[in-house]
Amino acid sequence: MTTEKISFRNDYSEGAHPFLLAALQQGALTQEAGYGEDSYSQRAAQVLLDACALSNGEVYFVAGGTLANLVVVAALLKPYESVVAPETGHICVHEAGAIEATGHKVHSLPQQHGKITAAQVEEVIASHDDDHMVHPRLVFLSQPTEFGTLYSRAEIEAISEVCRAHGLWLYVDGARLAAALASRFNDLSLPELARLVDAFYLGGTKNGALLGEAVVFTRPSRDLKFRRHLKQRGALLAKGRLIGAQFEALLRDDLYLTLARHADKAAQELVRGLTSAGCLFAAPPMTNQIFPVLPTALVERLEQRFEFYRWGQRPDYTTVIRLVTSWATTDEAVADFIAEVQR
Amino acid sequence: MTTEKISFRNDYSEGAHPFLLAALQQGALTQEAGYGEDSYSQRAAQVLLDACALSNGEVYFVAGGTLANLVVVAALLKPYESVVAPETGHICVHEAGAIEATGHKVHSLPQQHGKITAAQVEEVIASHDDDHMVHPRLVFLSQPTEFGTLYSRAEIEAISEVCRAHGLWLYVDGARLAAALASRFNDLSLPELARLVDAFYLGGTKNGALLGEAVVFTRPSRDLKFRRHLKQRGALLAKGRLIGAQFEALLRDDLYLTLARHADKAAQELVRGLTSAGCLFAAPPMTNQIFPVLPTALVERLEQRFEFYRWGQRPDYTTVIRLVTSWATTDEAVADFIAEVQR
Amino acid sequence: MTTEKISFRNDYSEGAHPFLLAALQQGALTQEAGYGEDSYSQRAAQVLLDACALSNGEVYFVAGGTLANLVVVAALLKPYESVVAPETGHICVHEAGAIEATGHKVHSLPQQHGKITAAQVEEVIASHDDDHMVHPRLVFLSQPTEFGTLYSRAEIEAISEVCRAHGLWLYVDGARLAAALASRFNDLSLPELARLVDAFYLGGTKNGALLGEAVVFTRPSRDLKFRRHLKQRGALLAKGRLIGAQFEALLRDDLYLTLARHADKAAQELVRGLTSAGCLFAAPPMTNQIFPVLPTALVERLEQRFEFYRWGQRPDYTTVIRLVTSWATTDEAVADFIAEVQR
Amino acid sequence: MTTEKISFRNDYSEGAHPFLLAALQQGALTQEAGYGEDSYSQRAAQVLLDACALSNGEVYFVAGGTLANLVVVAALLKPYESVVAPETGHICVHEAGAIEATGHKVHSLPQQHGKITAAQVEEVIASHDDDHMVHPRLVFLSQPTEFGTLYSRAEIEAISEVCRAHGLWLYVDGARLAAALASRFNDLSLPELARLVDAFYLGGTKNGALLGEAVVFTRPSRDLKFRRHLKQRGALLAKGRLIGAQFEALLRDDLYLTLARHADKAAQELVRGLTSAGCLFAAPPMTNQIFPVLPTALVERLEQRFEFYRWGQRPDYTTVIRLVTSWATTDEAVADFIAEVQR
Repeated sequence: MTTEKISFRNDYSEGAHPFLLAALQQGALTQEAGYGEDSYSQRAAQVLLDACALSNGEVYFVAGGTLANLVVVAALLKPYESVVAPETGHICVHEAGAIEATGHKVHSLPQQHGKITAAQVEEVIASHDDDHMVHPRLVFLSQPTEFGTLYSRAEIEAISEVCRAHGLWLYVDGARLAAALASRFNDLSLPELARLVDAFYLGGTKNGALLGEAVVFTRPSRDLKFRRHLKQRGALLAKGRLIGAQFEALLRDDLYLTLARHADKAAQELVRGLTSAGCLFAAPPMTNQIFPVLPTALVERLEQRFEFYRWGQRPDYTTVIRLVTSWATTDEAVADFIAEVQR
Repeated sequence: MTTEKISFRNDYSEGAHPFLLAALQQGALTQEAGYGEDSYSQRAAQVLLDACALSNGEVYFVAGGTLANLVVVAALLKPYESVVAPETGHICVHEAGAIEATGHKVHSLPQQHGKITAAQVEEVIASHDDDHMVHPRLVFLSQPTEFGTLYSRAEIEAISEVCRAHGLWLYVDGARLAAALASRFNDLSLPELARLVDAFYLGGTKNGALLGEAVVFTRPSRDLKFRRHLKQRGALLAKGRLIGAQFEALLRDDLYLTLARHADKAAQELVRGLTSAGCLFAAPPMTNQIFPVLPTALVERLEQRFEFYRWGQRPDYTTVIRLVTSWATTDEAVADFIAEVQR
Repeated sequence: MTTEKISFRNDYSEGAHPFLLAALQQGALTQEAGYGEDSYSQRAAQVLLDACALSNGEVYFVAGGTLANLVVVAALLKPYESVVAPETGHICVHEAGAIEATGHKVHSLPQQHGKITAAQVEEVIASHDDDHMVHPRLVFLSQPTEFGTLYSRAEIEAISEVCRAHGLWLYVDGARLAAALASRFNDLSLPELARLVDAFYLGGTKNGALLGEAVVFTRPSRDLKFRRHLKQRGALLAKGRLIGAQFEALLRDDLYLTLARHADKAAQELVRGLTSAGCLFAAPPMTNQIFPVLPTALVERLEQRFEFYRWGQRPDYTTVIRLVTSWATTDEAVADFIAEVQR
Repeated sequence: MTTEKISFRNDYSEGAHPFLLAALQQGALTQEAGYGEDSYSQRAAQVLLDACALSNGEVYFVAGGTLANLVVVAALLKPYESVVAPETGHICVHEAGAIEATGHKVHSLPQQHGKITAAQVEEVIASHDDDHMVHPRLVFLSQPTEFGTLYSRAEIEAISEVCRAHGLWLYVDGARLAAALASRFNDLSLPELARLVDAFYLGGTKNGALLGEAVVFTRPSRDLKFRRHLKQRGALLAKGRLIGAQFEALLRDDLYLTLARHADKAAQELVRGLTSAGCLFAAPPMTNQIFPVLPTALVERLEQRFEFYRWGQRPDYTTVIRLVTSWATTDEAVADFIAEVQR
């Protein structure tokens, strides 16, 4: 149903940014080639490759993040190869076993604020040198993580080095990558990311699009035949223009960064207000997802006017909640929330 | 690239019907629950169930036909169970092995104008009564077929009887189902279809939507947990409203039938013009896909001004082509084509 | 239960040839490395490679034919790649969808006496040049076929050429390969076979062993890591010696050919007797499986004293039956059967 | 190669117990039905069901443990359902992703000496109540565990209760189940185990057989069609008598317990000798696998005369090793080892 409370529940409650809807409207009646070969998708792909400073990368647009993750993994791995991921990774918890359904094991590593380290990856590799075991072949990270935190450039570099030394693919789930790129805590640019990883996706759904994620292969091989993989998993949209046109709009004048910056700023505003009220955070608040620790009684009061997820109860009568801001979050909503906290 | 010739190549070249775009525009900034639990999807589902005269069916919206087919099959079958389909079925040829990728064999049966018979289904069942064989468990049909032809009510009834007698699911791929329902050759109403089959989908993508197919289970079981299957295959869209709103618009005042009727009529107009020019058809022209057999020299001339698929060369210097009309096909395009043929 | 009639039902009714049981007995108490790295397996592998005139092939022993087929296919193919096989191929009918369960489509081609041609393979390849389709990548044949017939050297050469020209693997199911090699109708030697195909297996189960098939890769790649594939599919036996020791015995002094020759000769004896009684055959009788066409009344009488499969009823009151001979078939059994036919 | 040192490396180095080889020899030339329907398998199954006090259970013989595990899991679970197991479980580490290759996630739980608790299972269930997650549906345990420890009757009862309360299957990997049943530390009889779990297998390979594990369903459903699952995974042996005859011999006069008791006693003898030399153990030594913690210098000396696995280095100059005894372990080998330790 339509929600009535002010929502900090997620960043996909609204439909789409007006510019993107306008892009769909324009030229809705012209004819375009199907299945991703339309002119919108081709232009958007080129702009994205330029933004990544990739001279021979490849871009594919898919409908959602789970689909992106499962097709990439299924395309890159042989049957006996496995994925290394933090235990909080989206593929470990919130994709209903999508990766395993393509036949591959996921190693769930202990994480710190949603992140794993190069040393952990190395350890998994070292402990799987036996014919009776799977062969770790792809490292899955999220930037930002599921806790809204960021890998630093040095951290990604270290993981990238381990991957390259041992022949593993490095893949980044960027459902909220724009929020990372726009964050004032970020030191990893898009071209640097593109240089360090083998594949990633830049998310549209959670940053103003109706749907759509742009999968980027930074060093594509001729053998990959990714379109057949997409088709086989049901991920090749007949009207690819639907995503292409939105991404063209998102990438024009860096709208995707403008929208993400808005979301990040709203989150930082919440952080300021909450901090000044004495609140701590379960993870460093760096992007548009923040995890304040609040007295449970206060949480109950807030729930009467606002929507958000409870992330976990603590024994000391506090509760961790998740607040998510977006391009559509208003200053009033933020001010209201802070006022309610400080009341 | 943008096409410049007049295209009868397919029914998904245009963006979307204006009413559907308007529906997306309206309320684009209101907040809705995610993952198919939005109010648009819920209303659209109810209207569709009413149109099907189903009191306890279930409706799920997915992004495309291949995804619909593969999730339904994966959800309904046990590992050793198989699918029976005509050899021209979309799952047999044009889905890059999507069904097999979920682990299931597809029996490709010889077909007549894209159709199989109850007797053929019975024969497959009878010849697979052995522990060393797969167990046929689901019959896959398309209405209309890949050749634009229609199963009559009696034909579907006969197949349905065989399925129920032997415990098989009957599933219909309705990528162009509206074109079937709107056809003057059709004698199988939506409620009758819903009564005779276990599941089907009503296609949106090829009938005016940006994307979207409505999967209908006519007799759902509590055990199915279809949402988990959808999630696992990457088919649960975060912003389900995107499809829900379009289907709400499509179903309002039977717009989906109005659009399909337009497409069917344009096709019949082509049939009239072609027939009066002495042309034969490779399959009875019943819906918005028709397969005229034309002199190859004429086909070459037509290709200079029109776009369409060549379906097959014949030894007698004729060529079968496929012409597809849609809600967006103009009278001028049809008249032009006929004029060119008759020139 | 223990059968009491004389059986021509199959070639795996007896336990094992005495020499193989003796081999298991010898050294049963010595310690050996596990999982195929025992000395028996290593010696047997080398002898087999020598018999194949392969200088750098690889041999793996697995428990059964279905397991051999599914692990080889799963190891060689990418997700979107498919298998081409005659519709009567074991993988098409009698393996309960084992190949599809690993995610791959099998194209079932029309066959002549169990065989397909190079031209048919070429046609499948030519008609699958599209991103929306699977990519045919492996040709599956059986030598001898499921009808006991043989591919000639020229036929295999032609198929091999097509495969190499288009980058397909050629794989031969040799459950009864020894019966082919020992047949007087055969013109394809083991080294020639090894030169023309990429992989095959030499069956033990149906030629005197308790169990065991020897999978041979004729041109192995370093990347294959077949042992991990074997382990993942449950095909790596802890006591590999069990198969290794039997194959060592089978290969010593070409015992496998001696046993197969016995089986083939018994079948030819049956053919002579049946032919002289005016009997025809549904397929040319070339190895140890023969398919006489007999009056149904005679079949009923024979069934009172003998066991065999009925392969199919014909409208003219005749029935095709399958007779299988083996290394254990006695002269008396053959004479009895012929006498009963000629009575 | 043939090993020359005295080996405590594993319990599958020897061929087979003489009684089992004799059983294969007897009646090797009589004809039997194939694919598990032979008289040996049928008799052995009945004896095993009687030993389990099961009136309507079902028994299937398969070649190895990985195959048993993967076929059972694939047969019992729907695509979105998952397995709960201790992180040291064989399916988590040593089966090359066999379970995931059938499409299912395995939750790897922290363990204590190879065991998990009912509370841990309950927690996994409680934290997976969401459409975006897999649905835990089967608990996988090993008895004894990979550390040679035993679940007590009370522990299994508690886990069984949780499973039944929440509709999960409880399955026990009994590769060394006989060693558990024969242990003086065991308080869980075979009939009690059969009453508390839904399926388990009794291992033959590691207890004197050439190969073979007996999968027991304690409460089979008519829908399971396990033989088709077996066939599809390549697990249906043509000559089922091979395993049936060995199990008949193993079960006669409880030979399987006699052999296991010998192995357990040899291990206890080692424990006594090691303990008297001041040695500690990494896990309570309860069955035929024991894990002494020894000075690394001593380990190096022992390695010159004995074979065994190093399980892990510790920072204090000690090393955990694994010693495995079997039905074939001699008193001299044990005495030699103790003498070398105490030297």
